[in-house]
Amino acid sequence: MADILRSLLNEPLTPWLSGGGPEDEIVLSSRIRLARNLKNQPFPGRASTAKLGEIVAELKEVPVELQADDDHEYALIELEKISPLARHVLVEKHIISPNHAAEPENRALIVRDDAGVSIMVNEEDHLRLQCLEAGLNLTDAFNKATTIDDIIEAKHDLAFMEHIGYLTACPTNIGTGMRASVMAHLPALTLTKQMGTMVAIATQLGLTVRGLYGEGTEAAGNIFQISNQVTLGRSEQDIISNLSNVVKQIVDKERVARKLLLNDAPDALADRVWRAYGVLRYAQSLSAQEALALLSEVRLGIDLGVIDEVKPDIFNQLLVSTRPNFLQNLSGEVPMNQMACNKLRAQLVRSSLQRK
Amino acid sequence: MADILRSLLNEPLTPWLSGGGPEDEIVLSSRIRLARNLKNQPFPGRASTAKLGEIVAELKEVPVELQADDDHEYALIELEKISPLARHVLVEKHIISPNHAAEPENRALIVRDDAGVSIMVNEEDHLRLQCLEAGLNLTDAFNKATTIDDIIEAKHDLAFMEHIGYLTACPTNIGTGMRASVMAHLPALTLTKQMGTMVAIATQLGLTVRGLYGEGTEAAGNIFQISNQVTLGRSEQDIISNLSNVVKQIVDKERVARKLLLNDAPDALADRVWRAYGVLRYAQSLSAQEALALLSEVRLGIDLGVIDEVKPDIFNQLLVSTRPNFLQNLSGEVPMNQMACNKLRAQLVRSSLQRK
Repeated sequence: MADILRSLLNEPLTPWLSGGGPEDEIVLSSRIRLARNLKNQPFPGRASTAKLGEIVAELKEVPVELQADDDHEYALIELEKISPLARHVLVEKHIISPNHAAEPENRALIVRDDAGVSIMVNEEDHLRLQCLEAGLNLTDAFNKATTIDDIIEAKHDLAFMEHIGYLTACPTNIGTGMRASVMAHLPALTLTKQMGTMVAIATQLGLTVRGLYGEGTEAAGNIFQISNQVTLGRSEQDIISNLSNVVKQIVDKERVARKLLLNDAPDALADRVWRAYGVLRYAQSLSAQEALALLSEVRLGIDLGVIDEVKPDIFNQLLVSTRPNFLQNLSGEVPMNQMACNKLRAQLVRSSLQRK
Repeated sequence: MADILRSLLNEPLTPWLSGGGPEDEIVLSSRIRLARNLKNQPFPGRASTAKLGEIVAELKEVPVELQADDDHEYALIELEKISPLARHVLVEKHIISPNHAAEPENRALIVRDDAGVSIMVNEEDHLRLQCLEAGLNLTDAFNKATTIDDIIEAKHDLAFMEHIGYLTACPTNIGTGMRASVMAHLPALTLTKQMGTMVAIATQLGLTVRGLYGEGTEAAGNIFQISNQVTLGRSEQDIISNLSNVVKQIVDKERVARKLLLNDAPDALADRVWRAYGVLRYAQSLSAQEALALLSEVRLGIDLGVIDEVKPDIFNQLLVSTRPNFLQNLSGEVPMNQMACNKLRAQLVRSSLQRK
């Protein structure tokens, strides 16, 4: 357990962020999340502390059960036994939710050593299973989630009703209990001011688009999460193929926009991305926001073949490692003021870019 | 003559800009200019074309006369025989004035091969002699100017009146006919908003302070020219020692301001100068104005020991080589549009900074 936690907290690059999947110059990762509940227990929101403890206890063996079918190791981490900072790092890495981190008593995380599979225990539902894959690969993520779901269902009675499907704490999750989402880097659509249209179209097709980092419509680093809204009355296959098709269209539009940028104003584009690289390469202080914005420019430059000095996975790695809590945990200095944090971030970025 | 002209046009770094003089981390160069006129000729502003031609003819042997007393070679360049672009490069390098370049007929330049000595023929006066030295070294510049003045006076009758001094076209130059000036890089006084006070004090002491590049009070690259106003009724030694003393005080104030910046906010300063370096190192397009501003920051970083990747003379060299006409002449592409010029400037800066 300790080893897995340590690597979760200190390793910036999880395998599903290291690239290599389909469309990986635009789609960073695909995620399937399943909401499941135990049959004979109240939903976490209505459960007493004692009940929550019972639920965690009932699921204690899940890591062992999952390991039997997997080459990877699994661990159960009791959230109240790790530091608030460690919980915040897990939030930044999208392994647990902010709510899950905020109320750690009798909450747990079951997680695979590479974080490609994780299960929040006693978040809104008893089990929130998520499977991640690199690139646009919802099918593999779904297949893995189904396998894990089957393993859990074989040992534990889950709340399920014929004609409705899985029961969940929130009605919007009833049915498949599934949310599928994709994390995509869309700098050219943003630069050419087409994201508004993309969001409108996706919404009409039952999807949600939001910035991965940053509030509201703003997307620091031009990274967007595109996910399904509705889970009731549609099959998992429908949801996945609908999302995949829309994402493929968005990816195509992003490619067209990138070509346009490159053809219409190659000099301006080269100037822009190289300046961003120059600042990242030499700045002595960087806010999280600025780092993401500049990294996005640099990644665009790499993808378009303009910048040849860095490997594309540096971008994915720095996406995680420039986050405030990850940095703070790395420094071992707690609490860390913002100036010190910005300085450490700049230092980390510089040394990452110097290593080729 | 052709060799001297070619090197004037193509070499960015004149010896007096290569550093090494007193206070050379702040004072780039010292200049003495003497205004002289031939006794029996009307001032250029009142002279006919024929008269102007006579004057040039009368001074044709001056290069030979000067060479007899110097290890360097001298040449006389007839301005109408060189291209407008070549004349503009000479203006940018402060070898001739804009007025001199604008009306080239029967105007000439007598110049030493390293541009440390130059004489404009038929600018406002028949002879405008200038001598340059690296760093704060008005005395050597003055001694050289006096030597040259004596050589010329030995062979040519100059307009001079007892009790008044040398006669000049403009009354402000009458007397010594001398203007002494110093080119200083004052980024810390600018950053700490003390330049206004410096200008006011200098003005009270009979001096003028103006930006070397840029209009009015603005000084692109934080490079200022400090010079004497009055030439009548004061001895050359007085003018030089007054200017030297004021410049020394300004240099001290600049040093204090630099130390303050370094002590009060070392991180902010380091961030600032390294970012400027990063942009210069990687930008693909740079305007003349932006290049100067960033070069000034980088030079400050070098002087304060923050930036150790470049030699200080790169700054002096790029001061000249990033000027529009120098660049255009270098490219051989005439006329050159601004985009192409900005691109070439960025390329030149990048390659200069990469060479250590």
